[in-house]
Amino acid sequence: MAAARRTSRDIRSESRLVLMRALLAAGESTRNGLAEETGLSLATVSTIVGDLLKYDIAAETGLLTGGIGRPTTGLRLNADRGRVVGVYVEDRYLEATVFDAALGRLATVEATADEPVEEADDLIDWIGSAIDAALERAQANRDEVLGVGILLPGGMQRPVKAAAVLPNAIWLHLDRLRDRLGLPVVVDNPLKAIATSELWLGAGRRSANVVAVSLGYGVGAGIIQDGAVVRGATNASGEWGHSLLAFEGRRCQCGREGCVEAYVGIPGILQTLTETAPDHPLAASTACFAFLDALAAAAEAGDPAAIATIERSAHHLGAALTDLVAVLNPEVIALTGWNVGPVTRERLMSTVRQRVRDDAPGDAAADLAIEFSEQCGMDGIAAIALERFMRDIGLVTTRVPAL
Amino acid sequence: MAAARRTSRDIRSESRLVLMRALLAAGESTRNGLAEETGLSLATVSTIVGDLLKYDIAAETGLLTGGIGRPTTGLRLNADRGRVVGVYVEDRYLEATVFDAALGRLATVEATADEPVEEADDLIDWIGSAIDAALERAQANRDEVLGVGILLPGGMQRPVKAAAVLPNAIWLHLDRLRDRLGLPVVVDNPLKAIATSELWLGAGRRSANVVAVSLGYGVGAGIIQDGAVVRGATNASGEWGHSLLAFEGRRCQCGREGCVEAYVGIPGILQTLTETAPDHPLAASTACFAFLDALAAAAEAGDPAAIATIERSAHHLGAALTDLVAVLNPEVIALTGWNVGPVTRERLMSTVRQRVRDDAPGDAAADLAIEFSEQCGMDGIAAIALERFMRDIGLVTTRVPAL
Repeated sequence: MAAARRTSRDIRSESRLVLMRALLAAGESTRNGLAEETGLSLATVSTIVGDLLKYDIAAETGLLTGGIGRPTTGLRLNADRGRVVGVYVEDRYLEATVFDAALGRLATVEATADEPVEEADDLIDWIGSAIDAALERAQANRDEVLGVGILLPGGMQRPVKAAAVLPNAIWLHLDRLRDRLGLPVVVDNPLKAIATSELWLGAGRRSANVVAVSLGYGVGAGIIQDGAVVRGATNASGEWGHSLLAFEGRRCQCGREGCVEAYVGIPGILQTLTETAPDHPLAASTACFAFLDALAAAAEAGDPAAIATIERSAHHLGAALTDLVAVLNPEVIALTGWNVGPVTRERLMSTVRQRVRDDAPGDAAADLAIEFSEQCGMDGIAAIALERFMRDIGLVTTRVPAL
Repeated sequence: MAAARRTSRDIRSESRLVLMRALLAAGESTRNGLAEETGLSLATVSTIVGDLLKYDIAAETGLLTGGIGRPTTGLRLNADRGRVVGVYVEDRYLEATVFDAALGRLATVEATADEPVEEADDLIDWIGSAIDAALERAQANRDEVLGVGILLPGGMQRPVKAAAVLPNAIWLHLDRLRDRLGLPVVVDNPLKAIATSELWLGAGRRSANVVAVSLGYGVGAGIIQDGAVVRGATNASGEWGHSLLAFEGRRCQCGREGCVEAYVGIPGILQTLTETAPDHPLAASTACFAFLDALAAAAEAGDPAAIATIERSAHHLGAALTDLVAVLNPEVIALTGWNVGPVTRERLMSTVRQRVRDDAPGDAAADLAIEFSEQCGMDGIAAIALERFMRDIGLVTTRVPAL
């Protein structure tokens, strides 16, 4: 990519998204309220509101007479402008969720398969059927659909080395998927989706510098800097899970040695337990969220090996989060995943916060908030599909995924 | 900091800097040429050029008659608009360089002290005298000085924990320094300065996503994303040197265990030699650039321990750079420092590049260039002082350091 060339058209486009997000956050607002909230001039706000009204993306809600001064016209996002659909797919599990145009959830359909679905044609059919079922459940017509967003691990541009069968089956057959769906499709990876979710619906509403950290089987980070999602040169930013915790350390599933994920991902936590207490009953577990729940329960019941494993994992996580603080200096780290109970969460977080405070360089963590977040990739991919629709109608020029 | 609120004024401001940088890169250009180069509309370019001409920041160079079509008016930055001064200061070494307003170097004064200069009054006098001497050498009057930029390690907002005496002596007495100099002063840290140098003069001219890596006694990174310097919430971003190479590894001078700097900084390389060959003659060296030169010379003469140390250090550096690739996915990593000869550099870089290629997640490093750069913090702090001058006269609103 050449050096960024931001034109006045890009700026208008950016301002439109800023205003849409402000309107979504407010629920209902006015031109004056939006100008105050966004820092844009009233003239700019009025122009943008005009664009959004023209395309039915916003709607007027009648005169607001509360407070002092003349009554002013209320504004909101037009939830009924259309529908967007988010899709999450694994080889045996699929979820399709229908949202309205104000990112409200209308209906979800989940599907499971006994055998991994790996053939491209089968996958495409599976996705298509789930979308059809979700639209039916949401009582939505296909012609109302503004866009479909698909969460897909891996690079945007090309299949990645050592990738699982599934993402490649979709990457390689994206045209067939588009033909089957007959709808505008955008594909983006979960890290960009959680960052976008934070930007539209979460910590990004109040802070310009946020790192959204996803903790699960794998781990990664979505980055917001100066109010925009950081994508990097090839949309591959945020692979914090494959940055280093320990030089020449544990072998990671990606092939590298010592990755953060090999310690902080669920299989890594299981390995920490195995190293701590090889004969522990949970050491024979399969690495999945149920293992994490069982480990938390054991720790809460006073099991020393479980407590030691959680404590050690908290040190691993704290050290790895400190790296994000050192390099990116965010205001907020928003953690998602690890839906363990409040007792375990508190045990974890007191160690994590202490470790970050102790280890972060200089005053980089002085005003940092580390918090759990309710944001998720599904909401984020819906917001990306909405951004992509804005681009399709010519209101947005700035970088949204090209695929 | 609240969520970024970019107004149309900010956008004009940003466009002005984009255009100034394009004009600097071109040397001489035209309104049409600048429109083509920046992607800004001809109308926008003409407006901005009008602003720059009005404030004498740009100048017309007469009619250009080469090529086809009507002759057009040439434009260049007005180098004689004024002078900016960059200052680098350590406790026994000080450098002041005078630049013209097109960032051309005019004169440099260096000063050394036998004893560390630690008292605030002494430091302030030392800096003031060096600036006076440099201005005299550049035949510049004080009233021509648009701004002074001071490179200073540590946080922007407040003294950092475990900081050396010197930066704190300046941080705590910045008002007295301003009074003594009687000139507009901006202070910024070396990481932001090397990023700004790459943006104005280096890889940032052709790439929107660049990481400028500074290798020396300490190490760090200046980050450019989407054509702008990433500062983070408290201007503390880029402390890659204090991100983790090895969990519970070597003690770093910052107090943390296992920092990149503890392996890749010059004292870290010396420690690697000491661990490899405790009885090696160079193991008794002081950790400084002369040690690195001697190590390189020994390796080039075939000394196995020196070769092993360089090889091991290349693995450390490659692993640590891979983390930047994983998290930030840049197009270019521009390395500064380590001014070792071409043989050692080639030995280093082949290992570094191989390691990054092998370890980077997915295709994040597929199009990555890792190269040595001639940019330096001194040029960067001069550019920051120039940006700050643009702010002082009201042409720039976007974030430049506040101090």
